[in-house]
Amino acid sequence: MSQARSIAILLISCPDQKGLVSRISHFIFEGGGNILDLDQHVDPNEGIFSARIAWEMQEFTITSSQLKEAFTPLAKEINANWDIYFSWEKTRLAIFVSKYDHCLQEILWRHRLGEFGVEIPLIVSNHPDLKPLADHYGIPYYVFPVTKDNKEEQEQKQLALLAEYQIDTVILARYMQILTPQFVSAYPSQIINIHHSFLPAFVGKSPYAQAFERGVKIIGATSHYVTEELDEGPIIEQDIIRISHRDSLQDLVRKGRDLERLVLARAIQYHTENRVLVNGRKTIIFE
Amino acid sequence: MSQARSIAILLISCPDQKGLVSRISHFIFEGGGNILDLDQHVDPNEGIFSARIAWEMQEFTITSSQLKEAFTPLAKEINANWDIYFSWEKTRLAIFVSKYDHCLQEILWRHRLGEFGVEIPLIVSNHPDLKPLADHYGIPYYVFPVTKDNKEEQEQKQLALLAEYQIDTVILARYMQILTPQFVSAYPSQIINIHHSFLPAFVGKSPYAQAFERGVKIIGATSHYVTEELDEGPIIEQDIIRISHRDSLQDLVRKGRDLERLVLARAIQYHTENRVLVNGRKTIIFE
Amino acid sequence: MSQARSIAILLISCPDQKGLVSRISHFIFEGGGNILDLDQHVDPNEGIFSARIAWEMQEFTITSSQLKEAFTPLAKEINANWDIYFSWEKTRLAIFVSKYDHCLQEILWRHRLGEFGVEIPLIVSNHPDLKPLADHYGIPYYVFPVTKDNKEEQEQKQLALLAEYQIDTVILARYMQILTPQFVSAYPSQIINIHHSFLPAFVGKSPYAQAFERGVKIIGATSHYVTEELDEGPIIEQDIIRISHRDSLQDLVRKGRDLERLVLARAIQYHTENRVLVNGRKTIIFE
Amino acid sequence: MSQARSIAILLISCPDQKGLVSRISHFIFEGGGNILDLDQHVDPNEGIFSARIAWEMQEFTITSSQLKEAFTPLAKEINANWDIYFSWEKTRLAIFVSKYDHCLQEILWRHRLGEFGVEIPLIVSNHPDLKPLADHYGIPYYVFPVTKDNKEEQEQKQLALLAEYQIDTVILARYMQILTPQFVSAYPSQIINIHHSFLPAFVGKSPYAQAFERGVKIIGATSHYVTEELDEGPIIEQDIIRISHRDSLQDLVRKGRDLERLVLARAIQYHTENRVLVNGRKTIIFE
Repeated sequence: MSQARSIAILLISCPDQKGLVSRISHFIFEGGGNILDLDQHVDPNEGIFSARIAWEMQEFTITSSQLKEAFTPLAKEINANWDIYFSWEKTRLAIFVSKYDHCLQEILWRHRLGEFGVEIPLIVSNHPDLKPLADHYGIPYYVFPVTKDNKEEQEQKQLALLAEYQIDTVILARYMQILTPQFVSAYPSQIINIHHSFLPAFVGKSPYAQAFERGVKIIGATSHYVTEELDEGPIIEQDIIRISHRDSLQDLVRKGRDLERLVLARAIQYHTENRVLVNGRKTIIFE
Repeated sequence: MSQARSIAILLISCPDQKGLVSRISHFIFEGGGNILDLDQHVDPNEGIFSARIAWEMQEFTITSSQLKEAFTPLAKEINANWDIYFSWEKTRLAIFVSKYDHCLQEILWRHRLGEFGVEIPLIVSNHPDLKPLADHYGIPYYVFPVTKDNKEEQEQKQLALLAEYQIDTVILARYMQILTPQFVSAYPSQIINIHHSFLPAFVGKSPYAQAFERGVKIIGATSHYVTEELDEGPIIEQDIIRISHRDSLQDLVRKGRDLERLVLARAIQYHTENRVLVNGRKTIIFE
Repeated sequence: MSQARSIAILLISCPDQKGLVSRISHFIFEGGGNILDLDQHVDPNEGIFSARIAWEMQEFTITSSQLKEAFTPLAKEINANWDIYFSWEKTRLAIFVSKYDHCLQEILWRHRLGEFGVEIPLIVSNHPDLKPLADHYGIPYYVFPVTKDNKEEQEQKQLALLAEYQIDTVILARYMQILTPQFVSAYPSQIINIHHSFLPAFVGKSPYAQAFERGVKIIGATSHYVTEELDEGPIIEQDIIRISHRDSLQDLVRKGRDLERLVLARAIQYHTENRVLVNGRKTIIFE
Repeated sequence: MSQARSIAILLISCPDQKGLVSRISHFIFEGGGNILDLDQHVDPNEGIFSARIAWEMQEFTITSSQLKEAFTPLAKEINANWDIYFSWEKTRLAIFVSKYDHCLQEILWRHRLGEFGVEIPLIVSNHPDLKPLADHYGIPYYVFPVTKDNKEEQEQKQLALLAEYQIDTVILARYMQILTPQFVSAYPSQIINIHHSFLPAFVGKSPYAQAFERGVKIIGATSHYVTEELDEGPIIEQDIIRISHRDSLQDLVRKGRDLERLVLARAIQYHTENRVLVNGRKTIIFE
């Protein structure tokens, strides 16, 4: 999506009823907005209406600062869960890494090409190893060594830093620490992890070793929002690659790297283009 | 999509302008319809608005017989190309085959399972070979042997038969005859072919032999609407499968069969669920 | 592979040592055999040599009836696990089904086309529903209704029938009964199941419902040898298909059907072309 | 494959006859070599035997310097096309680039991780743009601006430079110049290109624009050896990605980038691990 245009994006879900599209689109029309993209879906089992609507703001008569207030009465009436995003307010990402560089490399390279319309004001790590890569891209790199004893303390410092940098979303780009529930609850549906298996297969540690032992013919990677339960958060994106008996455990790790970085990159793209609605344990992806 | 519900589906495209979604959805809301699914897209280069909107007819105050008339004024005003379909008016398919049975087998098996919400009142062939299969499914099978000299004459008889059976759409399920422009023009955007290559690679005859000679690592199949230009019609669906140097030409044919039937089945599903908008040489597929 | 040729296939694994290929190929050369295909692999971690060697028997001076005896001294010396198969001795399959017809349909259709070089002398079921399909292909269909109380008794009758028909391999084509360890032990590495999930995800009952609940973006199917532990046998083949939030549980079932039949068909092909070596919990597939 | 081991790799093709595997493996056995991996294939139509054999050199009694001479008599007798490679003699690559960085980025990143067992002593370009990236990895970067008038002259300088650096293989990593036949003939089957389409679809210029115009549902990338005929050389690897009507031409370019770099990386891996045999217009890939 071109970043040059001024676009508003409404993500919304609510109990289904007649006239929802009509009322919402009328609200936009009255303001003078032209809808560019509307994707709407009703879950027939749960009776939940959900939609993503993007419209041009250029000739819109309601200013962006007034828009949320203006939409609130309608949203309340239909009992909606909603938010509005603006194309010029870029999502601010903090990337968390440990020692593996492939996911960070991929994110920073795409970022420089302008593929993500985001800002990446800082990188956080529990190891100093990837500082040269951060330096190459000119992004501040903060090291917080984590031990069993200092984890909560370090997380408090990290949270303070994230607040200072006004971070919206945390990307765990193969960050090898399990976050505490306190940390997780500070960024609900705003922490994205990449797990190196086809979840829910091979939860937890060493999924490639588990896959190798089980003799699967396909390995996968899964990007998901982090919740308190390990590897149980809503899945954003998954993909797979074929392996064979000729592949050693090292080959799985190598092939998996390619999956991990692509799957994480797609999840970041969906999230930062405001294409993801979290619905309980699941996500709706408006492609 | 459940066939039990009474659903109307509007497929529409027109020059983009403000308020289109609002006006169309308001029309549906005023009639008392509940929108179940709305997928809308604006092509930013061509400035073309296109949408597929599905709504429940159960409490709709405009009867289905009046609906098209009722929508016409709005459609005219916005200069739209449109049609409305009803879930209880099943598309009537004629399947054209020659000697290969895999596509026919697939279509009839899915049809019996109720995967397609269609009627298949007849099968047409230039050979008697597949009559036993048609008999097994209890579908009339008409044979029109085609030679260079009698082609137009036989096509006239086929067209008369299709008219008699009130056929909406013709499926060329590996029918090994090239239709004349006269036949094609009788069913614009209503004749679906399966070509056994990844178009536009390997247009024309013997695509597997062409692929084998070229040494490609992947073969494909393409389902498209038939136009006057051979293998040039708008593409509905494509898919591919990997091959290797171990695969003989016969292996390509065997592996390709699996592709052909799945790709054709998906194209039939998109078409008969009214998910395809033809836009010049291209299609929009509302998934 | 053309069935017209007379081909011998050696499947072999043993502790690795120098000269194995040389000695085995020399044995074939001395007999006057021309090797058509040799695929060999040494697992560097376990030090296990494994190979599949196919050669022409037409000018081979050792008759097929003497061949196994002739090879035994060498096999003993290298402490091998091995067997020799002949292209003209077709694997005899019994297909076990319940009520779903898609896998049976697929197998019988491919069988009639000659894709599998096998014989299918009978079909076994716990329900009468699929008898018409068996009749269409002219294959005897035996019904053994199974209850909690009569399971072992019915299995004994089934085993007697399989013995009578000289069955080599049992295909569970969506057979909805769990076999007892007694039955399983009668056909070690000769019972092939299709499980409708991407194992080891969603072991056990209702994998599509489990997948739907978990909100995965990809579903899979797995064909594996049956062992005493449910869904834990060596995996032969797996494949996947993408799904989205628009897909209902019924859509998963429908999309999964296409996967199940293709994955099972590929597993049957690998097995009956003697391309599978079982190595503990894993398989080696010589493609 | 572990680089620590000393391994010899024989790539060979010749007219098929009895005893080829036996004689070649006996040659290796007599020298005291242990075969680690043997993949052999006979093309039944053309009667061509081809094989890749890897064995350990550690206890091999023939030194690597004598090995080619020692093998020559047998090779002559069977009229073979062959070469022997040693794991410690790394292929020396020159990367040619223009302005796009994604393929270069991918190659250098994998190279640094040790995924390719190669040396990359220089990068050649017709533009200065990617020098900073080359600098980051510490690889000399040579700029040869090319115009219509100076092309042959510049190519002569490039060839001299490649000779000086003892380059084995040239990688065209989105190098936007067509090489002259003179250049191509200097490196037969040793120049690898990445073409941004699913060849033979969309030969020549602007394949993404061509794909966009044609309305395909899948785009591809193809890595092939360069021959005198543009985009007609033997294909090493291909892959594809799905697109939809929502994708603009810019989206195709973006999605295609991911394909291009992965397909080129796989082609480089096959080539530098000596897994590719060129057979006329086709390749055999020993996976």
